[in-house]
This record gives sequence, C-alpha cells and structure tokens, in this order.
Amino acid sequence: MREIKVAVIGTKFMGRAHANAYRQARAFFSPPALPVLSLACGTNEHETQKFAEKFGFFRYTTNWEEAAQDPEIDVVDICTPNDLHAPITFAAARKGKAVFCEKPLARDLEEAKGMLRAVEEAGVPHMICFNYRFFPAIQLAKKLISDGALGEIRQFHALYLQDWGLTPGLPLTWRFQRERAGSGALGDTAVHIVDLARFLVGEIAEVTGLLATFIPERPLPSDGMGKVTVDDAAAFLARFQSGATGIFETSRVSLGRKNFMHLEVNGSRGSLFWNAEDPNWLWFYSIDDPPHLRGFRRILVTEEVHPYTKNWWPTGHILGYEHSFTHAVVELCGALREGRNPQPNFLDGVEAQAVLEAVLLSEGSKRWEKVPR
Amino acid sequence: MREIKVAVIGTKFMGRAHANAYRQARAFFSPPALPVLSLACGTNEHETQKFAEKFGFFRYTTNWEEAAQDPEIDVVDICTPNDLHAPITFAAARKGKAVFCEKPLARDLEEAKGMLRAVEEAGVPHMICFNYRFFPAIQLAKKLISDGALGEIRQFHALYLQDWGLTPGLPLTWRFQRERAGSGALGDTAVHIVDLARFLVGEIAEVTGLLATFIPERPLPSDGMGKVTVDDAAAFLARFQSGATGIFETSRVSLGRKNFMHLEVNGSRGSLFWNAEDPNWLWFYSIDDPPHLRGFRRILVTEEVHPYTKNWWPTGHILGYEHSFTHAVVELCGALREGRNPQPNFLDGVEAQAVLEAVLLSEGSKRWEKVPR
Amino acid sequence: MREIKVAVIGTKFMGRAHANAYRQARAFFSPPALPVLSLACGTNEHETQKFAEKFGFFRYTTNWEEAAQDPEIDVVDICTPNDLHAPITFAAARKGKAVFCEKPLARDLEEAKGMLRAVEEAGVPHMICFNYRFFPAIQLAKKLISDGALGEIRQFHALYLQDWGLTPGLPLTWRFQRERAGSGALGDTAVHIVDLARFLVGEIAEVTGLLATFIPERPLPSDGMGKVTVDDAAAFLARFQSGATGIFETSRVSLGRKNFMHLEVNGSRGSLFWNAEDPNWLWFYSIDDPPHLRGFRRILVTEEVHPYTKNWWPTGHILGYEHSFTHAVVELCGALREGRNPQPNFLDGVEAQAVLEAVLLSEGSKRWEKVPR
Amino acid sequence: MREIKVAVIGTKFMGRAHANAYRQARAFFSPPALPVLSLACGTNEHETQKFAEKFGFFRYTTNWEEAAQDPEIDVVDICTPNDLHAPITFAAARKGKAVFCEKPLARDLEEAKGMLRAVEEAGVPHMICFNYRFFPAIQLAKKLISDGALGEIRQFHALYLQDWGLTPGLPLTWRFQRERAGSGALGDTAVHIVDLARFLVGEIAEVTGLLATFIPERPLPSDGMGKVTVDDAAAFLARFQSGATGIFETSRVSLGRKNFMHLEVNGSRGSLFWNAEDPNWLWFYSIDDPPHLRGFRRILVTEEVHPYTKNWWPTGHILGYEHSFTHAVVELCGALREGRNPQPNFLDGVEAQAVLEAVLLSEGSKRWEKVPR
Repeated sequence: MREIKVAVIGTKFMGRAHANAYRQARAFFSPPALPVLSLACGTNEHETQKFAEKFGFFRYTTNWEEAAQDPEIDVVDICTPNDLHAPITFAAARKGKAVFCEKPLARDLEEAKGMLRAVEEAGVPHMICFNYRFFPAIQLAKKLISDGALGEIRQFHALYLQDWGLTPGLPLTWRFQRERAGSGALGDTAVHIVDLARFLVGEIAEVTGLLATFIPERPLPSDGMGKVTVDDAAAFLARFQSGATGIFETSRVSLGRKNFMHLEVNGSRGSLFWNAEDPNWLWFYSIDDPPHLRGFRRILVTEEVHPYTKNWWPTGHILGYEHSFTHAVVELCGALREGRNPQPNFLDGVEAQAVLEAVLLSEGSKRWEKVPR
Repeated sequence: MREIKVAVIGTKFMGRAHANAYRQARAFFSPPALPVLSLACGTNEHETQKFAEKFGFFRYTTNWEEAAQDPEIDVVDICTPNDLHAPITFAAARKGKAVFCEKPLARDLEEAKGMLRAVEEAGVPHMICFNYRFFPAIQLAKKLISDGALGEIRQFHALYLQDWGLTPGLPLTWRFQRERAGSGALGDTAVHIVDLARFLVGEIAEVTGLLATFIPERPLPSDGMGKVTVDDAAAFLARFQSGATGIFETSRVSLGRKNFMHLEVNGSRGSLFWNAEDPNWLWFYSIDDPPHLRGFRRILVTEEVHPYTKNWWPTGHILGYEHSFTHAVVELCGALREGRNPQPNFLDGVEAQAVLEAVLLSEGSKRWEKVPR
Repeated sequence: MREIKVAVIGTKFMGRAHANAYRQARAFFSPPALPVLSLACGTNEHETQKFAEKFGFFRYTTNWEEAAQDPEIDVVDICTPNDLHAPITFAAARKGKAVFCEKPLARDLEEAKGMLRAVEEAGVPHMICFNYRFFPAIQLAKKLISDGALGEIRQFHALYLQDWGLTPGLPLTWRFQRERAGSGALGDTAVHIVDLARFLVGEIAEVTGLLATFIPERPLPSDGMGKVTVDDAAAFLARFQSGATGIFETSRVSLGRKNFMHLEVNGSRGSLFWNAEDPNWLWFYSIDDPPHLRGFRRILVTEEVHPYTKNWWPTGHILGYEHSFTHAVVELCGALREGRNPQPNFLDGVEAQAVLEAVLLSEGSKRWEKVPR
Repeated sequence: MREIKVAVIGTKFMGRAHANAYRQARAFFSPPALPVLSLACGTNEHETQKFAEKFGFFRYTTNWEEAAQDPEIDVVDICTPNDLHAPITFAAARKGKAVFCEKPLARDLEEAKGMLRAVEEAGVPHMICFNYRFFPAIQLAKKLISDGALGEIRQFHALYLQDWGLTPGLPLTWRFQRERAGSGALGDTAVHIVDLARFLVGEIAEVTGLLATFIPERPLPSDGMGKVTVDDAAAFLARFQSGATGIFETSRVSLGRKNFMHLEVNGSRGSLFWNAEDPNWLWFYSIDDPPHLRGFRRILVTEEVHPYTKNWWPTGHILGYEHSFTHAVVELCGALREGRNPQPNFLDGVEAQAVLEAVLLSEGSKRWEKVPR
C-alpha cells in the first residue's frame, strides 16, 4: 500500500484535528504509505462541503453508512459523538476497512468489547486516538520509565481539569447525555489520563471513585431546560497491578483550568511531571544527580534527539496541541504499511473503558471495585 | 496577664520552631501579652542546655512532668513525639496551664477526644499548632472565600508530598512506629491538608482512602532491621458536608518533592491555588475579570494590605516557613490576653483526627466511611 | 483576486514555515483570497522536488530568477539567505509581483532602503515576515497597550537568547559570514525584538550597544577552520522617542536558552511580559486590581475572545510556533484582497534595520548613536 | 573575643534586619564569638526605646556620635541613610571599632575611598552588608562557578526591579535626594547586582549607561512638591575584564515587580539563573547532562548539603529574605573571632561604587567609561 485513502466521519473539533493531521503527516513526515483525504462525512451538507474544501478532501457525503463502506476507502476515521462509534465500526469492519476511532472507544464496556470483537473477527487493523501518548514529552517520559530512570514506580497522580462546562448558556449537547456519551468528564477527559496511566505505569487492578454533577440542568437547543445525565467531575483512587497507587481527578467545571492535564509519576530513583497546558516541557528529577544539584529539570522537548521533533522546527520552537494527532497518524500509516496493528488500539480502548466501568460501579457500590478483565 | 511564661517541651525540629516563634512574635509583633521563654525541656541534658542557651530560656529541665506542672509556667507547649501529647496535656491541664500542642493532636481519635475533654474540664485555653493556617497567603485565601470571591466551592484538591522517607539508611525512628506516632504520613502531613480543607471549605462528611508502605523495614537505631508499622503514603477521596468533593494525597516518598503541599480550590466564581514550596504566592482566578483578561493572578502576598506582612519587611521581601509559627504565637498570645480560646484549638485537632480515623477505617473496610462525630 | 499564486523561494527552515502557513491559512481561516502553492524554488533539485511534493506545490524550479519573474505568480515569498533578499525583490518588483520577505529585510540599511524604493517605485504590495507580531498573546499585548491598560509606557526589556551556536562542530554557514548575513545574532534574532519594541512601544530614538563573538572560528564545510565575521551576541540600551527606556540583548550562545525571547513592558498603570518558549501565555499586571489582589495574571491566550484563536481549537489547546506564520499569511491575503499594503511591511523592515545600523555604529564609536531616519 | 558587643545605628528597615540577624545567628548558628545587642541608636527617642525593647538591646541612645564611640562596643553597625555612613565610620574607626556598614558604602566614589582609607589606617575590621551574597542559592551558584561547572563565563544579565516608587503620595524622603543618597535606584538596588556580578563573574572593566527619572517631583513631608534629584531607574552595559559581557537594569517604578532581582549567568558549559522573589530556588543547566535530558534544574536549595541550610529546618522548608542577614552576621562574627577581615568588605564597597561612578560618568559623556581603579 503506497497510499492510504481515508474517510473522516465527523467535521467538528475532532474531524478538523484528524483532517489536519493527515495533511501534516504527509508534509512533515513523508510516511512510507501516504494518507490521502478521500472522503469527508458530516451531518450538515453545507458545512461538510466547506470542511472538505478547506482540507482538500476529494469528495464529501452526509451519509455515514456510505462513507463507512465506500469501496475506495482504506481507513475509516471516526470523529463522531460516542454513540456512533460502534455502528460505524461495525459497518467499516464488515467491509474490511481499517478503523481509527476517537476516544472513548464506546459508551460502556460491553459496547467497547463488541467493537473489539468486530475488528478482530474482521481481521482489520484498528487504532484508538489516544493522542496524548504522542506528545514528544510523553514519549520521552515513556522512554525514561522503560529505561529504568525512575526505578520502581510507586505513585501516579493525574488531574485533568477544564472549565468549559461553566460557559454561561452552554446548551445540553450530546456530551451531557448519558445515552449518547456514556458518561461525562469521566469518558471525555478521565479516559485520557487512564490511558496514560496504563501507558506509563501499567494495568490498574482496582479503583474506588466518586462522580459529581454540579450543574444539573442545561438549556435545551430548543426551549426550556433539560436534565444533565452525566458527571461534571469524577475522581478515583487506584491500585495498579504492580502495587503502585494512583489518584485521578477530572472535571469540566474547574474554573481557570483550560486543558490542565497534569501528570506526575514518582519512582524509587526518579520522578517526572508534565502538563498539557505547557506540553513541550517535561520535568524530570533523578536521584543519580549529585545531592547538591538535585532538582526537577525543565526539559524543553524540542531537540533533534527528542521523539518526532526533528521533523518540525529547530530546537526551542514549540509545538502545539494538534501535533499530537499528526504523530498518531504517522503511527497509523507506518503500521498499515508494515502490516501490523497500530498502537494504541481497540485493546487499549477496552482496557481504559474497563477502568471507567469500575469507577462507575464503585460510585454505586461505595466500595473498591476490581477492574473487570 | 502582661507576660506569658512558656515551657517548651521538645527541642528538636518543632521545639526550635516554637522557641523561635515566641522570640520573633515579641520582636516583630509586640503582642499585648508578651511571651517569655521560661523553661526548656528535652530528653538529653546537654542538648537541652544548649537549646536553652541559644534561644535564651531562663531555665531548663529533662523532666517533662516537672515542666508540665511548673508553678511559674502559664503555657505548656508540646513539641514531643505524638505519644506524649496526651500525658503532657493531662498533667498541664490539671495544673491549670494553657496548652499549645503540635499536630496531630493524638495518635488516634479516642486519645484526641480524651485530651479535648481534659482541657475543657480543666477550663484551660488550648490551641493546636496547625501552623499552615498562618501563612499570609492562606489567610488571604480564607478571606477571599469568606468574601464570596470564589462563589460556591465545588472542588478541593490537596497534595502534600515529601521525600525524606527515601533518605538512605534513615533509621526506624518514632515516626515509623504506630504505637508512638499513631500513623505515618497520614497523621504527620495529611493532617495539615485536612485542617486546611476544614478551614477553607468546611466539614468533611465521608471519605474513602488507601494507605501504602513502600519501604517495609528500616534500620534499627541499634542493629538489624525493624518493621515499619505506619504508612509511607496515603490518599483519599472526600465529600464535604456542603456537597463539594475533595481529593487528598500525602507521601513521604515522592522523590523530588520536598515540602510540596499543593492546594487548589475551585468555586463557581473563582479558583485559587497555593504551594508550600513557594508559600509567599497565592494564585487566584476570577470570573469577574473581563473575558479576554482572565487568568490566575500570581499574588506576592507581601503587601502592607496583606495579613501579617506589614510587621515584617517591605513588599517583595519574602517570608520563610518559620514565620507561620510566629503568627500562630501571635494568635495564642492575643487570645490569652483577651481571655478567649485561640483558633485553631483542640476541637479542630479532634475534627481533623476524626477524618484520619475515617480514612483508616475505610482502608480496612474498603468502603466509604462517615467521619465520626 | 480570488486566488493568490505564490512562489516560495527557499526550502529550508523558513521555506517550510511559509509553505505550511499558506496551507494552514486556507484550511483554518478561509481567507477571502485563497493562497495557492504554485511554485517552489530551491538550490538543490532533488530536495526542491521533495519539498514541492510534501507541501503540494504545482511546480518547482532551481532558478530563483525564473521563480521571481514567473508570469503566473502573484506573490514572491523570499525565504533565502539574506544576501538574496535584495536581488529577488528587485526582480520580482520589476515584474509587478507582491513581495513577502523574511527578516532581516537586508544586510544593511542602505540595501534595505534600496529594496523599499524598488517596491514603492514598482507600486507592488510588500510585507516583511516579522512573524512574532502574530502570536495571539502579542496581539493581545498590543491591544492592551493601545487601550491604555498600561498607561504611559516607561520601560521595555527584551532578551532573545538561543544556544544553537554552541552545537559542537557547527560549520561556518552563511549565518556566520558578514557578507552574506550582514550581521549575526543582531540581524537574525535582535531584529525580532526591535520590531516588537516598535510595534508595542514606538520608535527608538538612539542606542548604544556592544557586540561579542565568543567563538571566533568555525569549521569550513570543506576543510579546516574559517573566521566568523559576525556577532554571536549583542546588547544595547535604547531611548524611545516617547522617553521610555529600553534594554535589548540577544545571543546564540546562551546555554540552556532555546528560543527564549522574553519581553517585558512596564507602564504607569500596568505591566506585561511574555516568552516565546511559552508563547500561549501573556502575563499582565494592572494597578486597577484591588490592592490585596494585585499580581501578574497568567492568561492562556486561547479563548474565543482572543485574536485568531477561535479559528483553531477550543480553549486551552495550545498553539505552536508555526501558527504565527499562518496568521501572517492571513494578513497578507487579506491585504492583497482589499488592495491595501500589508502590515508589517518594508517600511518596518527599514526602520528595524536602521536600529541595527545604529547599534553597529555605536559599537564602533563607543558612543550613543541616533537611529538614522 | 568570646562575645561581640554591637551598636546598631538606625532602627528602620535595615536596623530591624540587622538586629534580628544578630539574634538569629546566635540562636541558629552558635558562632564562636557570640554577638550581643548592646546598644541601639535612632533619631526618635520613643521609637528607639521600643526598638531596643523588642530586640532586647541592653541600652539605647539617640546620639550616633556616642554610639559610634561607646567604649563598651566592639562593632558599630551602620544602618542609617547614606550620608551618615562616612561620618559614623570615621568616628568608629578612630576608636578602634570594627565597622559593619549597609550598602551603598557611600554617596560617591571619593567618599567611599575615604571610608576605606579610614578603616585601613585605623586597622579595624570592616564589612559591607551585601546581604544577597549570603542567600544559600547564591552561595551554591558561586560554588558551581568556582568548580568550573559553567565553564568560561560569557554573559551576565541582571535585572533588579521594584515598584514602590509608584506608591501614590510617596513623600520626598532622603532616598530621592542626591545630597543624602548619592543616587537613586542606582545606588540603592543596582549596587546589589553589581556586587553579585563581581562576586560571580569578576571585575567590570567598562560600562555605558543611562539614568531615568520618570516622576520628577514628589510631595514634601511638609507642604507642596519637591524636586527628585536622583534616578528612578538605571540601565547599563558592561564588559568584564575577562571578556564576558553584562547587562544590568534597575528600577523602582517597574509596576508589578516587588523585589525582582533576576540574575542569569551563561557559560560555555553551563548556565544558571536566580530570582530574589523566589530565592530558595537555583536554576542550573549543564552541558554534561545527556542531550535528551538537558534542561534547567530547579534546585530547592534547602538540603543539608547546601550552604547554611542545615542550621535551619529540614529540607523543603523555605527560608526568607532576612536569613541572608543572619548568614552575613555569621561571617562577621567568624571573621572577628579568627582575626581576619570579613568578606565582603569596604574594598568590595569601593569597587561597586566605582562601577556606579562610571555609569554616572557615561550618562553624562554618552560614551563608554572605564571603571576607575
């Protein structure tokens, strides 16, 4: 495969992020199999047309069933609300397409498992867009941990706080409805830090958590107010299989925090932390430094020796949020070319979903719950 | 009472912090009743003598029972290991002394309640040294919250991380023994953030938590290794009575974190955060700022208009850790002079202990536990 | 003009930044006149071909004279070493092309003035790529100053420090040769902070400066060592026409500083600062805040109300270095469509060059020198 | 000499800082010769009495001539306005007292030289209170440079910005009068960064500078307005004897900056920076770190292995501004006990004054000026 023909379904925040990523991957990384923006798919025809024009798609449609099964297409890229992840996956897998799906994989664990089954039975490649793995600083963090620079990992802390949920008059979109989104901040934002916890520290064995909905009603797109059926915020404690402990918190109503994903990992020989609002910097502390010179180093992860960065700009010229998607697409294209499954994939989507499921269970039972396996 | 004669029992870290505070209160705040360093008490005679000389105590002794009951003494100040807090309190209260006790108040809730009963029955003033309340930035935070600048408080996050527990060869001191300390990081450090949570947000209704001991054995002062019977780290989730949620974590083995007490409070109209490693700065975000100018303000809490600071140096000349003890002593002396009980006092000590107790319970039951009242 | 056909001359760092910018402007801003990547021009045929393919140029050439005069082309975009800025400008202007030129405009003031004369006499639009003006935070800073939020500006401080000049074995490229570059760090990096000083504070009246070359020889591309004939670092004091004072420093050998452009502006009613290594944040202090709440606000300039940002991602999702070029291209396309000259243009290039010239003069005379006008 | 009897002349900001330092040195450092607060001297009798009581002086006076020559006194400590530094030094030296003088040493170079001559001819020990040298982080910086960790020093940058000069209604005190202060921000604050430049980098060979007075009149203590005859701000470029370059700026009208003394040193193998508003942190970058892990380390200079800190509190418990004075007093007492002259002393005072003098000269001549030697 020298070219990979992509259908992007969804034209909003994520649709734009993905469409951009394919183009940038091509321009800056020359992947061995080049992605081609073949088909754009959205719900509103005019908007879809404009979206297609802007990013240079060859065609567009407003029918996702067609898009998912279009004979020309190699990869179906799902950027829709969560309730469409499964049906699109099923349709695409049936036709032998690779599937690249936004997170969370599904609205609940059962749905997620069904999606995994579908792609595995169809024998198609699958990937989930946990884009945060692809920030250069996170890749460097992973390398440091793999190299043993942190020793035995003992503690993981992650906050992922936003405040857009406080926007006055914000309508009751699908993100506030359980039947469409599955959960609120838990599935939308906590899922990222769950994935990063798994990526950096390993599997989570058990959790206990709480959910909170501070703003119980929001304006309906039509008239009047509707009930919010998902969480505005969630927090949980975790024990990893390794014995490490974890705390996680997420919120869409933490005033002043915009995309504040703050991770910290403490090990027996080193520690590191990182924040998505300053994503080019990785902070690293090592017990191997001389005692009088120990301190967290603020590493600007833009050097030639750092992951991905030499394809962009000279040292010190910072990368933005969307670059992580480009790097994800580089992985997708490389894997497809090499005939392997990309990383992370639906297995990771299912594992993350299992953690969310255990948090929801514990909210009800008021007990620690094992992560279902 | 124009002078307050103080006996300080304990000559190590806290003994020095308290002795210093009385002197500094006198020099910089001229409290209406002046503290006098009358009597120092420690276990080692030579060290106690040197301690007394350095800080200018009139007398010293190595017998805490004498110190606690000395006829000349007005205030007994307890800076000993936790297992002596109760007996010294009992002895001092019986003799009508005011008691100023280090945290945690006791090794467990029952002991704490007994101490509270003792001082109440004796009708003596009592204070607990939750010194962090007395950082100017924390006082400013309290004022902001009381003034409504944060609106309705929804989320409280607190990490209190240290790493001294990783010092190679650190012996099995009393801090690692349950029978002497009650608990580990939980009682030593988490208790501070529990108190600040109560001070800033209000009472905690229920918690669920975990404890972890990563280094199970430490060298005995004599020979060989002894078992650590307390936690190196603890974490818990909380629901406040107000409906706000809380997450708390503490550790003495978080490499690179020295005295990293990080607090964040999110409300419906504002947020603030603070860190004890940079304690002169308070960060505050307000929804009342114009939309294009919203951001956390980094306030250097050293202006004349700020709490306590005009007694020290001109604006911008930063205060250190020990200044918080001086401010606590100013409160102690003021309250004694005015014939009222100081704030915070043994009631606060008991309430904080009740939260710790609920965390320990939940660790065993693996369930949420109500804070006993 | 509905489409603007662009020839990009130069395929290295700046060529890539500009090519990317045209594409991104089209995808994210839909400017009223759409830029089209018509013609790429570089020195090495194979590299130029690859560059053209990656970014989707229609054609390529290795002959800049052809590129500058190609009948189809509307805009000639100059991303070459400094010694080619003038000849390409002359060729393009003669043929009626708009010219978009990288900074510094020229190797010296006389050459810069010649270029300005050429575009003015030809009556063609002209723009200089002072891309830093187009960071959202800088646009917000400009707005704050224009709105009077800083009062009377009194002090301007700017450091622009990099360390790539310390890369071991770095060869004697054109950037180290006076005849090709004009100057070293002065023209390469100081020129940006001179432009921002003019943009934010106004015209500079006089300067006194110093230059330093710490590494006097560098390896020749062939063999042996060659003499560095430009500065590694430069610093100067300035008086603005308004009476404000300024200090400026730049360096390519400040170890640990990667793209550390740090600006601070102090006025009678407010102050602000900004750093290109954290470019999404603007720090702003206002005397209009209540005295107990004054502090620099750390504004994450990614809100819908902020310049340019609503065309990208939701709040908190940060932008990178290259976005500034996209915004510059949006200005270029808008101006061409509206039939006005873009901002900033060759006049600004000449003014900035005049300041550099005065610095160089003062280095020789060891006196303050008026900026030639 | 087992005890050192001190007369502190001046009871305001500096008098309090010094009085405190003697007491704290005694309590926390047990210097081999113990300082004794013998005699306090101020202009207002009531205030002086209160000052003496608060800090525990044995006696007080309002006559500086008596204080400077009191037979019992060993050290005369000068905390007065600048115009009294010389006469007090002369009186004290004549009587064989050691002299400890606040900065700047004098109002101008000639006066400073006269003071140096006086103490040398009298053969008395002398010290100048450049207290910033005594921050643990600055001592660590000095050690790093001495150990070669920065390689060859190439660039020094220092800003020392305050904003108290903008306080509305601030009266025309001695600090705004040339005949009493010598200069404004230059002598008051720039002198500190000049001293640190000398301490860390070495002697300055030549300078060129500017002064600015933005607020030309201030209220007289009586009635009406009086003319400000000193600078509000100053900036200068410098060449060190070593070939390193320097930029310096100081101001008392930089809104939002409270005690913002920011230093940066760039060398061929490392860099460091420090800020007096966060004085417990030293930032250090080393080329010896592996390329993918290079970054400025944020070192919390409170470890046992760090200078001075083990005498205070456990790691992570931060020190304040006034601790630097305590450390200075430790040096003073140690030197007196050992029979050597303390560091820094009047020679350093003269050298710093010479740099200020050259800046003032260059302001007039508009040329670079050699630092007079």
